Amino acid sequence: VQVRDPELERLCFARQILDRIGDKWSIAVIYTLGDTTKRFTELKREIDGISQRMLTATLRSLERDGLVRRTVHPVVPPRVDYELTDLGRTLFGTVCNLTLWAVHHADDIAEARAEYDARPGSENA
Amino acid sequence: VQVRDPELERLCFARQILDRIGDKWSIAVIYTLGDTTKRFTELKREIDGISQRMLTATLRSLERDGLVRRTVHPVVPPRVDYELTDLGRTLFGTVCNLTLWAVHHADDIAEARAEYDARPGSENA
Repeated sequence: VQVRDPELERLCFARQILDRIGDKWSIAVIYTLGDTTKRFTELKREIDGISQRMLTATLRSLERDGLVRRTVHPVVPPRVDYELTDLGRTLFGTVCNLTLWAVHHADDIAEARAEYDARPGSENA
Repeated sequence: VQVRDPELERLCFARQILDRIGDKWSIAVIYTLGDTTKRFTELKREIDGISQRMLTATLRSLERDGLVRRTVHPVVPPRVDYELTDLGRTLFGTVCNLTLWAVHHADDIAEARAEYDARPGSENA
């Protein structure tokens, strides 16, 4: 007999969402958009190291999750804008905090890693 | 000539860190530990769906990053405890917020996905 636990299902789904959102490129896009509207080329330029293909895939996932709105303007040549939706904006603060945490503690983590790797027998922990 | 930009290097490293921390199992371990001390078997039981191997790998990464402390007690049979370090605790609040966001907005995201997938031509965006 398989018991269906709605709370547990909800938590598992939330975990999947976290995994998607915790992706470094998703975080970078959300962080870079903030409350602005940007074109693809602007995002590409401002997010260092992202490939065209990865940016396209990330934007599409975020659009599918309802976090980013993609607007195609019927002009010639066509203009495509990206911005956070209301839902995306509710996530922005948390993403900012997480990013700031990582920037502030980058040195601590680098130090911890160096120390760990220098430990005798750290391979056999 | 390659220009070395310390700010940029810092940001790239922070992004790597985010990618590691944004991993769903890392988030689950940090969230589950909170301010408690737990054994491996307790973590395994409380984090639904994690395999023994994945929990081992996640704990090791978190220990290497200086976020989790692993204490081996010299008793028979040996007892191994895990807890957040001070650095890990500074991350806990943000991880909680992110987890709560995902739990609160799971329905919104599920709806957005269903809507996106139902759009005509959403495959060719």
